[in-house]
Amino acid sequence: MEGTRTRRSGRRPGRHDTRSEILTAARACFTEAGYDGTTIRRVAARAGIDAALVHRHFGTKLDLFLAAVGLPADLTGVLARVVAGDAAGLGERVVRTFVEVWDNAPLRGASFAGLMRLASGDPAGADLLARYLRDDLGAALARALGVESAQERVALVGSQLLGIGVARYVLRLEPLASATPAAIARYLGPAVRRLLTSPVP
Amino acid sequence: MEGTRTRRSGRRPGRHDTRSEILTAARACFTEAGYDGTTIRRVAARAGIDAALVHRHFGTKLDLFLAAVGLPADLTGVLARVVAGDAAGLGERVVRTFVEVWDNAPLRGASFAGLMRLASGDPAGADLLARYLRDDLGAALARALGVESAQERVALVGSQLLGIGVARYVLRLEPLASATPAAIARYLGPAVRRLLTSPVP
Repeated sequence: MEGTRTRRSGRRPGRHDTRSEILTAARACFTEAGYDGTTIRRVAARAGIDAALVHRHFGTKLDLFLAAVGLPADLTGVLARVVAGDAAGLGERVVRTFVEVWDNAPLRGASFAGLMRLASGDPAGADLLARYLRDDLGAALARALGVESAQERVALVGSQLLGIGVARYVLRLEPLASATPAAIARYLGPAVRRLLTSPVP
Repeated sequence: MEGTRTRRSGRRPGRHDTRSEILTAARACFTEAGYDGTTIRRVAARAGIDAALVHRHFGTKLDLFLAAVGLPADLTGVLARVVAGDAAGLGERVVRTFVEVWDNAPLRGASFAGLMRLASGDPAGADLLARYLRDDLGAALARALGVESAQERVALVGSQLLGIGVARYVLRLEPLASATPAAIARYLGPAVRRLLTSPVP
């Protein structure tokens, strides 16, 4: 995703990096004021630049939010590693990786809650996320798995992962709110492995 | 929940039922304008009554929304029937009942999306829903199941059900968006049954 390219370039020392300054300001605003309460103008003010510059670098507020969420740069590589290990541990790796990615996202749980808020309040946002999950992430996982009914399986596993996200980051339901990624993987990994590998009815 | 008591009294013929008129207006407003775009004042205007009367009958906007969502009156009875059948079909009954309840809610999928929007944008709303799931619904299911680690199991199964709701009603991910409740139960019932009955790690 966009955000990671930016974070990378942000590491170049001594370079005045407008993109990374905008992202820092955007993360602060989204964390403080949520998706609805954040405007491009507010982000621009916080970064001390003109709003037009934010638009030029990131487009709409939605584009800016997705960049600020900052899922890992190399999401395809992450998927490849998840799928590459032994089959018995596949479900646990999927669950653990999902939780670690969100735990380590720049806004932590607020990233996931923000995506849910966006998707549940705005049909265009929901459609954008659904297409991302299905066409990008889902298709990559389906290719990597090489099983029958891969797209269906990905949707079923996707529903379990979305539910973990809602329980952990939105509702903060125990034990999922406080458990380590490894513990959640032990709880739900076997169910996810079966969804990925058992025959689809 | 509140909503159902109201729907029941709404059936009495010939009675001028302010509560049911308020709920009808509230459902129309929440469906059209979403949770954020709906105000008590707007609902009152639509019902042709004073806003104070809406407050007197339903309290806050959140209370009104939960009443308008209108989960079944006899949720405890529904749970008892789900748990009472044969153990082999338990998971399928849980999944199917969850989907049927939301498919048949007065606002259909909009009810679930509204709850997600509420929970993801408002910590108080998230806390209210978490307490409802854990203390009311979760505790009832835990008692009915009579297994070890019942509260943990309920949270794990809850995460799967929340995820089905997000996939079906918010993101409209196929095949979960268009599948029948029975088909979704066949897909995910076995995983849910194991979460409810296998040893918790």
